[in-house]
Parts: sequence; structure tokens; C-alpha cells
Amino acid sequence: MDNTAIETYITQHANDFLEDLKGWLRIPSISTLPEAAADVRRAAEYAVEQLKQSGIEHAEIIQTKGHPLVYGEWLGASGQPTLLIYGHYDVQPVDPIELWESPPFEPTVRDGKLYSRGAADDKGQVMLVFKALETLKNVTGSLPINVKILIEGEEEAGGESIEHYVKTTPLSCDAAFICDTHMPNKETPALIYGLRGITYTEVEVQGAKQDLHSGSYGGVAPNPLHALAIIISRLKDADGHIHIPGLYDKVRKPTHEEKEFWHKDPLHINEAYLQEMGVTQLSGELEYPPLERTSARPTLEVHGITGGFVGEGAKTVIPAVATAKISLRLPPDLRSGEVFKLFEKAVKELAPAGVTVKVTNIHGGEGTLVERNTKPVQAAAAALEEVYGKAPAFMREGGSIPIAALFSEILQVPIVLMGFGLPDDNLHAPNEKYDLDQFYNGIRTVASFLQKMA
Amino acid sequence: MDNTAIETYITQHANDFLEDLKGWLRIPSISTLPEAAADVRRAAEYAVEQLKQSGIEHAEIIQTKGHPLVYGEWLGASGQPTLLIYGHYDVQPVDPIELWESPPFEPTVRDGKLYSRGAADDKGQVMLVFKALETLKNVTGSLPINVKILIEGEEEAGGESIEHYVKTTPLSCDAAFICDTHMPNKETPALIYGLRGITYTEVEVQGAKQDLHSGSYGGVAPNPLHALAIIISRLKDADGHIHIPGLYDKVRKPTHEEKEFWHKDPLHINEAYLQEMGVTQLSGELEYPPLERTSARPTLEVHGITGGFVGEGAKTVIPAVATAKISLRLPPDLRSGEVFKLFEKAVKELAPAGVTVKVTNIHGGEGTLVERNTKPVQAAAAALEEVYGKAPAFMREGGSIPIAALFSEILQVPIVLMGFGLPDDNLHAPNEKYDLDQFYNGIRTVASFLQKMA
Repeated sequence: MDNTAIETYITQHANDFLEDLKGWLRIPSISTLPEAAADVRRAAEYAVEQLKQSGIEHAEIIQTKGHPLVYGEWLGASGQPTLLIYGHYDVQPVDPIELWESPPFEPTVRDGKLYSRGAADDKGQVMLVFKALETLKNVTGSLPINVKILIEGEEEAGGESIEHYVKTTPLSCDAAFICDTHMPNKETPALIYGLRGITYTEVEVQGAKQDLHSGSYGGVAPNPLHALAIIISRLKDADGHIHIPGLYDKVRKPTHEEKEFWHKDPLHINEAYLQEMGVTQLSGELEYPPLERTSARPTLEVHGITGGFVGEGAKTVIPAVATAKISLRLPPDLRSGEVFKLFEKAVKELAPAGVTVKVTNIHGGEGTLVERNTKPVQAAAAALEEVYGKAPAFMREGGSIPIAALFSEILQVPIVLMGFGLPDDNLHAPNEKYDLDQFYNGIRTVASFLQKMA
Repeated sequence: MDNTAIETYITQHANDFLEDLKGWLRIPSISTLPEAAADVRRAAEYAVEQLKQSGIEHAEIIQTKGHPLVYGEWLGASGQPTLLIYGHYDVQPVDPIELWESPPFEPTVRDGKLYSRGAADDKGQVMLVFKALETLKNVTGSLPINVKILIEGEEEAGGESIEHYVKTTPLSCDAAFICDTHMPNKETPALIYGLRGITYTEVEVQGAKQDLHSGSYGGVAPNPLHALAIIISRLKDADGHIHIPGLYDKVRKPTHEEKEFWHKDPLHINEAYLQEMGVTQLSGELEYPPLERTSARPTLEVHGITGGFVGEGAKTVIPAVATAKISLRLPPDLRSGEVFKLFEKAVKELAPAGVTVKVTNIHGGEGTLVERNTKPVQAAAAALEEVYGKAPAFMREGGSIPIAALFSEILQVPIVLMGFGLPDDNLHAPNEKYDLDQFYNGIRTVASFLQKMA
């Protein structure tokens, strides 16, 4: 294989690759907003066109009950293994929009970084796979292995459609590759072997039948906002301990190797956490090392609270109803549906008297731990070492990619979790960005990975 | 004095009176919304016109640094006392607007009740005073006593301008009458002898320097929403006890008579509370009777919480900043400014580690207890008994009318707190209403009150 030719192709097409990514990023495919459905579909159609341009002529949209899937395949490498490649083309909402330095759907390059919602999560990472395929196809006239590409539009919205598809459609393959993770820093490649699951809920508290005046009723009225504060403070204390009976029972004991990595923190990730967050101390369970807390411990977070008056000025209202969006991140073995039941029970028990509480399961997904000593993982490691000049770190990530657990359970094939994001990419936050060095190194790495899989 | 002539005039002009009130209610004079400033001014101009129509020819707008005051006087009753009459023409915001059965600024009569923002608080109550003046003036050609009328446009927004005016302008008078309170029910007139003060605050909590992804940072990130929940739950526990050191020190011991009234609850107000709120139990400090809790105890309420994501769907954000609007109602002797300092200190002490907290004093006002055995109060009691056929109950109210304390301190004259609102008027809530029987009985009572003051 001629790496020089590949390098030349990437260099010559660097700008085209970037423009193709920008075109995709301009489509505001926010999967959780019902009003964005047409944009989500446009983003799927864009992916089909890009696949065809990359030489995957068999590429199409697959209708679902929700947002469409994008599927493509190239099976011309007779006798070679088949790699299933996964990514998602939907993005998170953009609030608070006033904090973006450039508009979220007008991709802008500043200082070698591409700023846009979805730049890192996950359009940038999917596009680099497309461009690796295009490079191999155009340089060699072929691909070294067979590929099936499955891109979903509901990763940020529960992923029901792909779950249904994977469970009901034969998708024979020899390995799966998910490009939706990150590295500790630009110099340190990483392969992810663990992901957390998630249970995303909404807690609704009802007090009186209508909003009340705090002058007239303050002293006898139930206040749903106060009740929520009590529930939330009882669910997780100031030291980060979650008080949901049974929650910690199934947390798997870490290996000696993991414990040592977390305690020694050879990549100085603790220091990076402080810098990325701009704080002087870390929060959470002090008795566990920070790396364990973010990747292998259950955590609980409040994402937003509604009810009452939040406009400018003052209003002395006691609201009739208040809600909180609360999610849990779950290490493998804690099943999302079971945790929801424990959560619902705990919330009802922790609620103060005088209010009624309703708990809704918005969406969920399972965590996973993948086998590290498989041929595909070793091929990915070798590719990373070739491009970055350093063997990758094997790490667990705290985010949730439920499709990894699903592939593992349904397809029963080795999984490769390799991505090129960086910790300060501002995923789900204002000013999301993707480092362009990572974009191009990602193309190089994936091209090499596919060759090493042959 | 010819009561028949007065009754005839009121009956003949009943519809005109209502139309004049509706015209005022159509002006959305929300004093806390900067964008409503022009409407607030229009409402002031409308009041001037109404005063002139009522025979108070000397009526004018007084400019202030904030919303204008409306002032009128008629001093033609030589040798008679001068009564200062107070009310406010500004109204509360209307959220949540979707719960209004008819639009808040399209006054609508249903079942003998006038629905509109401001119908009861306080335009309806001010208009009935204007109409009592008009009735007396047109029936008798004169007024039995001298009157000065002072109407403000910042009652719902801190009332700074009227405070400055009263402190800097000689306003000689023999008594002050505030028409901004309510009765326990339509059959039971009441005079108010106590009001609570208020301290309205905003607590802002800052965690990381920007919003974070709960997958990447859950376990080490400070969560300002969680910190607020902890602060709020520590400020007031589930039993309604407020944990602000020093707060309860100055709460005045109730009299034996007060204690008996609260314990016996002869007007069945506890039962009314349950019905009005649609709940099966009352919240708050169980060791105090409900009437004491709503009128003579300090209370603390959360009015709204911002931060993170509250849209449809799911977003796994840990917000950088969260805020809560929190107010305290204060029995007399607890000074608003002093309580703010105690509150600020407590919030900072109760905040969990890892976040920074800023506390802002949005506005405040003092509570008051007025003397019951004064000539003006006795005249009001006699007028109420004449119209309602029953001696009024003497009660304390839980709301705040800081002008009462100010009049008491600056003018050093007896205060009459007489109003015709009802407990289910939905003050500060959707579907605010004013009972039209109360409107017309209010006109009758005020006309009689002025005659008895002579």
C-alpha cells in the first residue's frame, strides 16, 4: 500500500473535505426538536450524497417511525472481513445561543478549529470516515475490506429507531467501528473500552390547583419548586453520593490495572479537568479518583428546572407545578430500565408531604465494556500508533453511546471505539468545535485501520 | 345625608362605573417589564382623567425617576379632616398566559365576576374609591371631608418612587386610607391591622466557566442547579422551618386575643385555604395555627429557577450558571434590609463547596401593625357594618403593602386598611378576578366611610 499516494490525496483535497463537512454542519439537525424534523431529513440526504461521492454507490435512506437512518455498503473485497461503521448525523440543541461566539449553524474556522454545533459530535467524526473511504477508493480504486455504514439521526434523542432496526434486520459483519469518542489530548491517541449508560427522566411536582400569591398563601401552600429542591438534594448530597436504594449494588469492581491507571493518572487528566472547567477543585465523591468518577461510577445530574416566574424583575408567585429534567449516567451492569424503576421509587419516597409527584422515563441506553484483545481493536491501535507516533491509551469514557452495547449484544462481534474528539470540544455546550488537525489525522488513521483489518 | 339618593346614583351609573374600570384594565401596566413603560404611563394618564371625572379637578401626573405617580386633591371642606387615599395602578406579569380562560387584558364578566389582570390588585379597588368620590360629589355637590389621592405605578416593583416622594414632600393629612386588602368572604367584612414586609432576592450560582456535557464531566463537575437545590432545601426544610440564623429573633409575640382568633378560626379560613388551593393538607410549620403562619410568621418561597435546558426533549447539560428568585415575607419588626443581610450570609454559608454564589437584593418593603382604636378605623368599621350588616373582623394579612409602614413612620397618622378583595381573586396568578358585588358594595362603603369621617 502506498501511503505517500494517500497522503498526497488528503493534502490535495483537504479544503474540499472541509467544505463538505461545513455543508453538513449548516443543516440544523436537532433531533429532539419536533420543528426541526425537515432539517434532520435534509442532513440524512446530505449523508447519502456524501457516501455516494466517497464511492459507496449503494447508499440510501431507510425510513423509520422517527428520523431516518442512512445506510451504505460496499462488499467488493471478496474473502475479506466486513466492518460495520456507525455514526450519527443529529445534533444537540444550541441553548444558550447568546453564548456562541459565531452562530452554531454557520461553521467558522478560528485558530485551526472548526466551530459549529455538531462539529465534534458527531458530524466531523463521521465525515472523516467518509473521507477515509473516499481517499482509499480513489487512490487504490477499491477498499481493503468490506464495509457497511449505518448512520442514525436519533442519537441525541434516545435512538429508538436504530435499536429497532438492529434488532429486526440481519446485519452480518465481523466487527463494528464507532467513531464518536475522544482522546485525552492531541498528542495522546486513545481507544475506548468502556462507556456509561443513561437514564433520562423528568420529575413533575404538583402542589395547589393553580398558581398562588406568596403573600396570601405563604405559610400554608405547598411550593413545588421547594419540593423539587428537597427531592434533588436528597437524591444526591453535597458530596456526590446518590441516595437511590439499590443503585450501587451492581457496580462492577474495577480491575487492579484500572485502579492503578485512575490513581496514577499518567495522562494528567485531573489537571485538564480543572483547566477545562475553570475551577479550583473537583466536585463529586472524594473517596474515588476523578477518572473513576467520570467513567465507572453512577452519577446524577439536574439539567433544568421549570415552574413559576423566571423573567426580568420580580413576581411573588408560588407555582402550581414545577418540573426537573434529571439524568443518571450508569456504568455497565446497571440496566437503564431497572435504574429508572429504582429512581422513580426513590423520588416518590423522598418527596415531602403535600405534593404529588409524577416521574417520566424520557429515554435510556445501556453502558458497555468491550474486549480489548481482539484483532479489530489491535488493528485500530496499530493505526493510531502509526499516525500519532505513540501507542494509544486504553480508557473508559463517561458518555453514553448505547449503540455500542446494542451491537455487542445483538451482533456479537468485536467493537472498536475510536474517535478523534478532544476534551475541550464543548460537546452539548456553546462553541462546540472540532480541531482540524484531528479531522485530518482521523482520516489518515481510519484509512490505515481499514488496511490493517485486511 | 340622603342615602337613597346615593343608592339611586350608584344604581343608575353601575354600568358606566364598570366600563370605566374595564377601560383601565385594558392597559397592560406591568411595572416590572421595561418594555411596558409606555403602557404604565398610559394607565397613569387614565387615572388622572378618571379623577377629574370624579370631580377632583386638581389632578395631575407627578414625574419620578421610575413610573409616574398620580396625585389629586380636593380641599373644599373647610374645618374638616383631610384623608390621604392610596392605591396603585400597576399590575403583575401574566405568565403562565396559557392558563388564562380569557385574555388578561381583555376584561370579561363571567358569573358576576370581572376577570382581568389588575381587576382586584389594585385597579378595581382604586376605581371604587374614585366612584365613591364621584357619587358623593354629584349627589351632594361636595365632599364631606378633604381628600388627597396618591396612586403609584411601582407597587409590584419595589415602590421606590413613592417612597422618595413621601419622604421628601410635605403631605399633611389627618389619616391615610389604603384600599388594597381583602375580606375573608363576601358576607364577612374585615379591617386589616397587620401586614407583612418583604425581601425579594436573586441567588446566582456559578460552577464551571461554561456549560458542560454530563457524560464527560458528570462526577467531577460542580452543578449550579444541584447547588441551588441544596441551598434552598437547607434554607427551608420540609416542615417549613427557615434556617437563617437570627431571622426569628425579632418576631413579636402575638397577643392573647390574636392567639385565640388564630386557634379558633371562627371564620373557617383553614377550610377555605384547602378549597382555594385544591389540596387535602396544609404545608408549613405545624406547630403554629395556619392563620398565624400566613400573617404573622416569616415565610420563604422560591419563585423560579433558571439554568440549563428546559425545552422539549432532552439535553444532558450541566449548566455553568443557575439562578433562583427567592423572597421572604416578614412580620413587623423584621426590617427588610437587615433580613437581606442575614439571608445573604446564610446562603453563602449553606452553599456546597465548588461553586461561587452571588446574592442580589431585588427589592424590599416593611411590614406594619396599625392601631385599631382610632377615629378613622372606627368610622370605617361603622361604614362596613352599615353596608354588610355585620361588624368587621379585625385581621392581619400576609401580603405586603410597604406604603402602610411608610405612611405610619413618616406621616404619623392613623391608617385605615380596608379593601373588598376576596381570597379566591387569584392575585398574581392566572384568571385574576374581582367580584362585582364587592365593587359596588365597596363604593357604598367608601361613600359612607367618608361621611362618617366628617
